[in-house]
Amino acid sequence: MASQTRQWLLTNPPVADIKLSGDDATFSLVTKELPPVGPNQALVKTLYLSNDPAQRTWIQKDQDPERLYLPPVQKDTPMKAFGICEVVQSEAENLKKGDLVLTEANWTEYSVQDAAALRPVQPDPEHGIKPTHFLGSLGFTGMTAYWGLVDVVRTTASDTVVVSGAAGATGSMVVQIAKHLVGCKRIIGIAGSDEKCRWVESLGADTCINYKSKSFKEDLIKATEGYVEVYYDNVGGEILDLMLTRMKRHGRIAACGAISNYNNGNEKQISNWNEVIFNRIEIRGLIVLDAMPKMGEIMETLSKGVKDGKIKMTEESETIVKSKFEDIPSTWMMLFQGGNQGKLITQLV
Amino acid sequence: MASQTRQWLLTNPPVADIKLSGDDATFSLVTKELPPVGPNQALVKTLYLSNDPAQRTWIQKDQDPERLYLPPVQKDTPMKAFGICEVVQSEAENLKKGDLVLTEANWTEYSVQDAAALRPVQPDPEHGIKPTHFLGSLGFTGMTAYWGLVDVVRTTASDTVVVSGAAGATGSMVVQIAKHLVGCKRIIGIAGSDEKCRWVESLGADTCINYKSKSFKEDLIKATEGYVEVYYDNVGGEILDLMLTRMKRHGRIAACGAISNYNNGNEKQISNWNEVIFNRIEIRGLIVLDAMPKMGEIMETLSKGVKDGKIKMTEESETIVKSKFEDIPSTWMMLFQGGNQGKLITQLV
Repeated sequence: MASQTRQWLLTNPPVADIKLSGDDATFSLVTKELPPVGPNQALVKTLYLSNDPAQRTWIQKDQDPERLYLPPVQKDTPMKAFGICEVVQSEAENLKKGDLVLTEANWTEYSVQDAAALRPVQPDPEHGIKPTHFLGSLGFTGMTAYWGLVDVVRTTASDTVVVSGAAGATGSMVVQIAKHLVGCKRIIGIAGSDEKCRWVESLGADTCINYKSKSFKEDLIKATEGYVEVYYDNVGGEILDLMLTRMKRHGRIAACGAISNYNNGNEKQISNWNEVIFNRIEIRGLIVLDAMPKMGEIMETLSKGVKDGKIKMTEESETIVKSKFEDIPSTWMMLFQGGNQGKLITQLV
Repeated sequence: MASQTRQWLLTNPPVADIKLSGDDATFSLVTKELPPVGPNQALVKTLYLSNDPAQRTWIQKDQDPERLYLPPVQKDTPMKAFGICEVVQSEAENLKKGDLVLTEANWTEYSVQDAAALRPVQPDPEHGIKPTHFLGSLGFTGMTAYWGLVDVVRTTASDTVVVSGAAGATGSMVVQIAKHLVGCKRIIGIAGSDEKCRWVESLGADTCINYKSKSFKEDLIKATEGYVEVYYDNVGGEILDLMLTRMKRHGRIAACGAISNYNNGNEKQISNWNEVIFNRIEIRGLIVLDAMPKMGEIMETLSKGVKDGKIKMTEESETIVKSKFEDIPSTWMMLFQGGNQGKLITQLV
């Protein structure tokens, strides 16, 4: 039985760029003793880690805890992350060795957890549902996509929708939900390569535009001729600024993420604010925590979508990176380098 | 009877700063023949002109007409402005010489107008209601304030409200409506001088903060301790950016104006966008045109407020500048120099 674990601690909360090495490295690897497993607790081993752009916001230097939606990661404590773990030893009635659970695994190999904090996950091979899907399409990611699109900005079949980060975990679910569950009039994805764009189109986008192309601005303007009702924003920054000029009068923007901001310090970004006024744009920030009261309902809708074949759960909808424990931070960094298609998952080997 | 009129034309639509003189002056003064007064028309003389920050947005160079909420002013046509005029000659049944009317007077001395475009105004000296009030508190300005605060961001008595441009035409009405009609919990104004701030407090703000003070940021943070539910934004830019950090979770922002942007070209401005996401802020742009279906109801509420003594209509709630026709542009420019308290009105002399 493991009595020690390796952990990645947050040692230097970053202001802008993440540093993977050097005296001021953002994270450091340590080995710690594990506490004994008490009653109603379990020792779990981390199998898969969820990689989320939002994690970057949890570690920002001097982040005011009152302004974040959950407690920021404290200096010299383990980096926070959701993960799928296997129960190694259980002192809880409802858990047995070998069970798979979803929990705040953090960047640790092993951890002792209260059973109440462990949510059993049930893969369903008949419908192609694997454990990792509970970190993505059938987890917080899928919930975020559905909640933002359907509840927060009230998207209906008559809407044309633009989605940025469309090849990312949330964006690729937004595209599928918009197309196959809501039945939107037209869906325009924005992603970071031609290959990703073709994949986004295979998920249901009517078109997908490569923001790294020289003709991006012209391409987007052409694709949004007549303007659009809904913009689901996962990236913030320049693409958001441009999209302000492409919204229909009384259009709605779901502000879900701003990955383009997270490593840029405090750069100023929006130049088209007048559009918000002139065209009476409605913008709503969203965090999946607000969806908790509707969690059961949303998860049922998504599971049904999977079983009906409307939401695709193929190899391509996840980027699973087999990583040594030492490589957790560099695998996570792929998020900010456009290295993933669909959910980026670390499989510890 | 006048057969000619002087007019100020928009000759060089500005990109950033307005130029009052030189070869590339924004406006130029010309004299034109007046057309004959036809049936159902009237010749009117402009007495008072409304000065509005929004006028700056109507003349922006290369403004895409599709993206503005009304037709932009075309090069070499008269500068658009609302005004109170006196009927000089009438060929319409419902109008007689000496009647006062509200209309799109533009920067002209005289104009021939269709009677249908002239809205008679009735001053009410008993309640202190003067003709100029129909350009401000009892006109589009008062409507904008009420519509934005009450309808667009659904302000109620339990809300704490911050208002920028609080000594301006719209802001000073927002303060009064919030305090005396809605009965908000707490009202915090932001204005450009200590003198203006004391006036804003006399209107009903619990406190008002001078944004030109060195301690502005600290003062605002202190005044908004515990954060606020509603921000009524008349200025955009840095103050909006700071206010994003002072909103309560699920707070609402009425994006009514952005006077700080109008002359700045295309400068980037917002650095705290993450706050919109983390704290699920709702932002809604607004234009008073959307309030038209409720115009009767809102005007009745405001008139009753005036008659009940809840909305103050004192000398101090307008800045009336007696100007020669030649000085119309420089009087208008006072808006951008913080030269007015309450509505800025040009009285032609």
